Amino acid sequence: MKKLINKPEDVVAEELQGIAQAHPDLVRVSMDGPFYIVRADAPVQGKVGVISGGGSGHEPMHGGFVGVGMLDAACPGAVFTSPTPDQMLEATKAVNGGAGVLHIVKNYTGDVLNFEMAADLARAEGITVEAVVIDDDVAVKDSLYTAGRRGVGATVLAEKITGAAAEQRRPLAEVAEICRQVNANGRSMGMALTSCTVPHAGKPTFELGENEMEIGIGIHGEPGRTRMPLKTAAEITELLATPILDDLPFKSGDEVLAFVNGMGGTPLIELYVVYNELAKICKGRGIKIARNLIGPYITSLEMAGCSITLLKLNDEFTRLWDAPVKTAGLRWGL
Amino acid sequence: MKKLINKPEDVVAEELQGIAQAHPDLVRVSMDGPFYIVRADAPVQGKVGVISGGGSGHEPMHGGFVGVGMLDAACPGAVFTSPTPDQMLEATKAVNGGAGVLHIVKNYTGDVLNFEMAADLARAEGITVEAVVIDDDVAVKDSLYTAGRRGVGATVLAEKITGAAAEQRRPLAEVAEICRQVNANGRSMGMALTSCTVPHAGKPTFELGENEMEIGIGIHGEPGRTRMPLKTAAEITELLATPILDDLPFKSGDEVLAFVNGMGGTPLIELYVVYNELAKICKGRGIKIARNLIGPYITSLEMAGCSITLLKLNDEFTRLWDAPVKTAGLRWGL
Repeated sequence: MKKLINKPEDVVAEELQGIAQAHPDLVRVSMDGPFYIVRADAPVQGKVGVISGGGSGHEPMHGGFVGVGMLDAACPGAVFTSPTPDQMLEATKAVNGGAGVLHIVKNYTGDVLNFEMAADLARAEGITVEAVVIDDDVAVKDSLYTAGRRGVGATVLAEKITGAAAEQRRPLAEVAEICRQVNANGRSMGMALTSCTVPHAGKPTFELGENEMEIGIGIHGEPGRTRMPLKTAAEITELLATPILDDLPFKSGDEVLAFVNGMGGTPLIELYVVYNELAKICKGRGIKIARNLIGPYITSLEMAGCSITLLKLNDEFTRLWDAPVKTAGLRWGL
Repeated sequence: MKKLINKPEDVVAEELQGIAQAHPDLVRVSMDGPFYIVRADAPVQGKVGVISGGGSGHEPMHGGFVGVGMLDAACPGAVFTSPTPDQMLEATKAVNGGAGVLHIVKNYTGDVLNFEMAADLARAEGITVEAVVIDDDVAVKDSLYTAGRRGVGATVLAEKITGAAAEQRRPLAEVAEICRQVNANGRSMGMALTSCTVPHAGKPTFELGENEMEIGIGIHGEPGRTRMPLKTAAEITELLATPILDDLPFKSGDEVLAFVNGMGGTPLIELYVVYNELAKICKGRGIKIARNLIGPYITSLEMAGCSITLLKLNDEFTRLWDAPVKTAGLRWGL
């Protein structure tokens, strides 16, 4: 196992120490009790607090998205392991500015159960909590860690757009509804050229042959739709984009946000090659890419591969996407 | 070779097509003649044009740094291959707004010779050109492609700081002097856990054993100082930081910008672990990290590893670093 780490069991704590030292202008990191990251000025009075969380190993998601205009807090679990309800509860309390708190939950069984428990505990303490589950992955119906579709790339877009709505001081019910609508209009699929190695496991999660790839893979290396011999970027992009486009379905005349995501070990040069193919496919179907995001934003440690997310835009989504954001992982206008 | 590409010989052209389609608000990509990327509003009248360029495979550098507040143009060569003088000449002409043009050149023999030739050709056409060579890598004196030290991480910082000075409409001599001063006050060193594979070569540039790493490696896989068994992040950070700190030397009381760069295949979680170690080392020497940059900004395709750059700050560097920038690869304030 070749990693820039000290002891495998210390990776998450040391990463959080790094974040705390690097970004005190953006966030505070709580490490005395349950681990969580909150924006530096939390709680913001009168603003809905927006929280997400999940296993570590997907950086910059979620901790890198804490800041003005996006998340109020993130709860990092161990690598590829759900955070605990007490992390979520403490984060919920830390961001409660009196306007309620929204939990954005990726659809993995552990995350969903733990966020539900945390929401119940927070409500018992008098905090209004709503939760939205993200399940945008069209690859498989059920999978290793999930009943129903998995939550993947649309999570990043939901956090940005929902965070912007909360920043405008919209009420909780409205912020939650926007988040649900982003999920309803977003679809994703991913693929892997290589596996990744969880630090405390010390060996690759799965094996792929020298000339093999896997289509429809999850962000924890969960099995996808199919393994097949390596294909060209044009063919791979088609294999990802077609099920996405057909599922919603996206139609001629639609405006979309196209998100080409790197899984952690794939260089940017290849993501732009994929974006180029995706732009051709969308054009061929009369779909206009009005906004885009290209880079490693929801990763799977050092896995090589990519995922594509398409979000059908409306004027409100576009305005909220364009709104200023200031986080370590995503920043503009501030 | 596992890559998200079509034909190896088309990688750079297709990447540029992807950039052109993704970022028309930021850049124009010229592909009819010699390849180059210029900011969308080039030439900006009365502003010094700032250009860089080099082999592809180091993305987002340099094309991802074209935009307001940073580069006016970038010339991408083939992967790990210097761009040609005609690319640099055409880019120079395209950004000439009457105030002269600065060439920021990483110290590799091919880049230096070709930029010199381009500068001569541009001068023959009546354009005032200055050039600054970046040579911040303390690892080795001479190397495979270089006489003297190689230009690495300080290039990113020089492009940002110099670009901000040009944006303020400072004259060419002043902009060039600021660039020289950044180089004079910046030091870097890198390391690799794995090799990378140049697309048209089809096999790894070098081999590293299962438990082996290389310290002092260049961004094209050029040999470094030494190969050794894999060490912890704390030990690796010490091996990189000590030669950097001792070289300038950085002294107690100094304020620095600390740049922890990923080589392309290393996930962000590990870069924050390294940053955490670097912060301890700097603190131990009485050096204050006043600004930082953490992520993959000057990469070596999918190589796993990292580099550290320290830049001794002064008030002017800090102000110019903080100035607004709007590029695909680096953005704040706009």
